[in-house]
Amino acid sequence: MQAEVKTDTAGYLHTVLPFAALKTSVLSGIAEHAQVRTEKKGTLLFYPDAKNDKFYIVRSGWVKLFRETMGGDEAIIDILNAGHCFGEIGLSGVEPMPYGAQVIEDACIISLPRFLLADEIMRNSVFGLAVLQSMTRQRMRRDLEIEHRTVQTAPQRIGCFLLKFCAGRGEGEMTLHLPYEKAVIASRLGMTPETFSRALGQLKAAQGLTVRGGTVTIPSVRALADFSCIACSSSFPCKEPETLA
Amino acid sequence: MQAEVKTDTAGYLHTVLPFAALKTSVLSGIAEHAQVRTEKKGTLLFYPDAKNDKFYIVRSGWVKLFRETMGGDEAIIDILNAGHCFGEIGLSGVEPMPYGAQVIEDACIISLPRFLLADEIMRNSVFGLAVLQSMTRQRMRRDLEIEHRTVQTAPQRIGCFLLKFCAGRGEGEMTLHLPYEKAVIASRLGMTPETFSRALGQLKAAQGLTVRGGTVTIPSVRALADFSCIACSSSFPCKEPETLA
Repeated sequence: MQAEVKTDTAGYLHTVLPFAALKTSVLSGIAEHAQVRTEKKGTLLFYPDAKNDKFYIVRSGWVKLFRETMGGDEAIIDILNAGHCFGEIGLSGVEPMPYGAQVIEDACIISLPRFLLADEIMRNSVFGLAVLQSMTRQRMRRDLEIEHRTVQTAPQRIGCFLLKFCAGRGEGEMTLHLPYEKAVIASRLGMTPETFSRALGQLKAAQGLTVRGGTVTIPSVRALADFSCIACSSSFPCKEPETLA
Repeated sequence: MQAEVKTDTAGYLHTVLPFAALKTSVLSGIAEHAQVRTEKKGTLLFYPDAKNDKFYIVRSGWVKLFRETMGGDEAIIDILNAGHCFGEIGLSGVEPMPYGAQVIEDACIISLPRFLLADEIMRNSVFGLAVLQSMTRQRMRRDLEIEHRTVQTAPQRIGCFLLKFCAGRGEGEMTLHLPYEKAVIASRLGMTPETFSRALGQLKAAQGLTVRGGTVTIPSVRALADFSCIACSSSFPCKEPETLA
């Protein structure tokens, strides 16, 4: 049973960006040291500015990365799901970790001792380049976020959030279930709950969206894309879509 | 004369993050291929989404990285000065470059063929790690920007912008010259000119700042830090200050 979990973990890691660059034998060796844990919604994986020597991979569920101001307010830097890594900035010697991580929907999290990856980077430049690619992916998410915070209106930003889950599923009517709570979506988009609520009202009026609990129906994905993507440097469908898995 | 410029360029590169990890002989070889150009304010180095095969280092002056929306609006992703690099995301095979770069104050720019660095990463894992560190530095600037956009008010954000230039210069009265035009600062901070103007007025009233053209006098850096840094995860002085050089 334990052996099966390890094989399965190695197999999964092989589908994730930096690990795909490793030979099966090397990856199996690394996966031997993996911890695989199922974590409940609300579990704090680590606080901001805490000492931390792990590298994490989200296998399922949702994890938020956040920072806390001196005044006690929280800023969500990113929300990650399956296939995304965090803790990689520790590979550059950044210590302590400048953000915290909390599970916001039940999640399966794989963690690895970070030194194993640091050693592998020094041994294997192909893996080093793959880690650089992984970091670039995170960096480009940030660039896009800054762009959106600069140029999109609040209703456009909510539309953009929804569209990321619509890629590859046609351009007509679509019903989707919000991946996590509306309060977290608001915070993820850098809005107060009041701004979010007002902006969602405007979006519903402009696009005919219906929202029942966590279920949203979009009458026309194409029309929503025309509305939101005019204030983005990319066109629909997004180059890096989100998955609801 | 030409030889002197090359030696000087290698010497300068040796002070910049990823290149500091290279042996002098290797760096000299790379610096042989460097182009060093003095560029006037306003010069467009490259458009967003243009094909580009260079890696850039700012030696002096200021360069903005920007993106353009489908609707024609511009979002400034970052503004860089001496010691900062750009074009590094191309090392991860990202093509074309998702942002453009424009000189916003007269600048000296060093550029290198990117393939030379890609080759060196494959040959030398210590250099690969240094490039990863350079990328991490840029990534952390983005994380901080997203945090500030989320939790700082507009006057706090302007205060924060000024404080970055005050680090290591005491906590009392300080006079500084804005590094670039107010309209660009507004855009850098993700504000419309009207929001910036109103927020600057509020900051002047709250902190007794005087602004004459591009010269700002802060009566108390400590008081300004108390005002702005309450909405930041770091305390003053900033971990990564900006220089006016």
